[in-house]
Amino acid sequence: MARFFVSASNIFGGVAYLSSSDTEHLRSLRIRNGEVFTVCDGNGNDYNCVLNRMDHDSAEATILSRTPSVGEPAVHVTLFMAYAKGDKNDHVVQKAVELGAGAIVLFPCRRCVARPEGNALIKRVLRLSRIAEEAAKQCGRGRIPTVTALDSFEEAVARAAEADVPLLCYENETDTGLKQILDTRAGAGTISVMCGPEGGFDAAEAELAVARGLRSVTLGKRILRCETAPLAALTAIMFQTGEL
Amino acid sequence: MARFFVSASNIFGGVAYLSSSDTEHLRSLRIRNGEVFTVCDGNGNDYNCVLNRMDHDSAEATILSRTPSVGEPAVHVTLFMAYAKGDKNDHVVQKAVELGAGAIVLFPCRRCVARPEGNALIKRVLRLSRIAEEAAKQCGRGRIPTVTALDSFEEAVARAAEADVPLLCYENETDTGLKQILDTRAGAGTISVMCGPEGGFDAAEAELAVARGLRSVTLGKRILRCETAPLAALTAIMFQTGEL
Repeated sequence: MARFFVSASNIFGGVAYLSSSDTEHLRSLRIRNGEVFTVCDGNGNDYNCVLNRMDHDSAEATILSRTPSVGEPAVHVTLFMAYAKGDKNDHVVQKAVELGAGAIVLFPCRRCVARPEGNALIKRVLRLSRIAEEAAKQCGRGRIPTVTALDSFEEAVARAAEADVPLLCYENETDTGLKQILDTRAGAGTISVMCGPEGGFDAAEAELAVARGLRSVTLGKRILRCETAPLAALTAIMFQTGEL
Repeated sequence: MARFFVSASNIFGGVAYLSSSDTEHLRSLRIRNGEVFTVCDGNGNDYNCVLNRMDHDSAEATILSRTPSVGEPAVHVTLFMAYAKGDKNDHVVQKAVELGAGAIVLFPCRRCVARPEGNALIKRVLRLSRIAEEAAKQCGRGRIPTVTALDSFEEAVARAAEADVPLLCYENETDTGLKQILDTRAGAGTISVMCGPEGGFDAAEAELAVARGLRSVTLGKRILRCETAPLAALTAIMFQTGEL
């Protein structure tokens, strides 16, 4: 069913008030008065609605029922992804939202070939936020995961370290597998996963992250590309926690 | 380290004989006499080699040691993916090889928008085979997963049903999760995973597959795109079997 995110402040008195762009979207989907669709308040609530008025740039829908959004996982996973070349960040954001990421954070590190700054960075974050919103609508999420960009690797490590289970996917890790950590931390509320750029993290970066409390893990014996690793780690977490 | 697949028949007498295209690749990597690289025979053996002769269109490398390829998972997973639009099949083949798929099989079904035939199909399979070979080299596989195309959904179901654990990822399945099946089938040698096109399988197709022995499973409460679902299922299987 068609799905719209409407700010909670525009849902009151049993009615959802849709914005100009959502109205345009309703029109493009050829939804007419009397037809039903889903409105989500972005706070984990889904409203089953029936369209009762639409004009040029606004629409109103009567709420039939409210249910918790089923698409929200219980575990909150923040994906920390280094800047990557081409459309790899785009690709990862879209799939990560489908797979249940709670938030996505971009950061620079030593081997990043791409390192957007200034206007280019602002544009990239805006584009990724739009991709996250589109993906959230399409896959039935109850919240739109945030996309943010940090200035430094150190800042990313500090943020990642705040999670109950902070993980660093490191290709030179040979001892500890992701499964070993997850098996012992069932029921963790927040998990962070840091993944590097095309060339991986350098040794000093991995050391710093581990010194700050991140657990270095391997994703197995095959070398995963920088756009494959974060999605593989996220999928494994969702599978392990019963969300997949 | 650079990695080349060389047919087992070109490895004998302690020497690996490289083809014209591999020689070109050696040259592009600026590998010179005395430098080491890996040759894989595609049967699960890796050879540590040192280059000892290279001319215009052939090269010879002396074998220093032989080890089993570490990149081959113990479980053999065949991914059955419906024809999809754009470069989605390409994308899935590349990532599936990295994640450890044993083989990839394409098939048509009712809701396939793309349905290549004749020359277009031959070209597509050849391109996907090249993508699989490149990915196998890059990620350190010990075999190049095969890519094949079948003529019908029925044929795909029959092939998939041959595996120890044959799975159908079906969006209208609400009862059985992938984890439920995998938890009870630890140690299975062969697993098949069938995933549908953009519009999913229709009810008659799902019924037929289940009647032929496939287990219908859900991949959770979010709607995964047709290029996300097969990779999510494959990742989950590799994670569960200790290969990730």
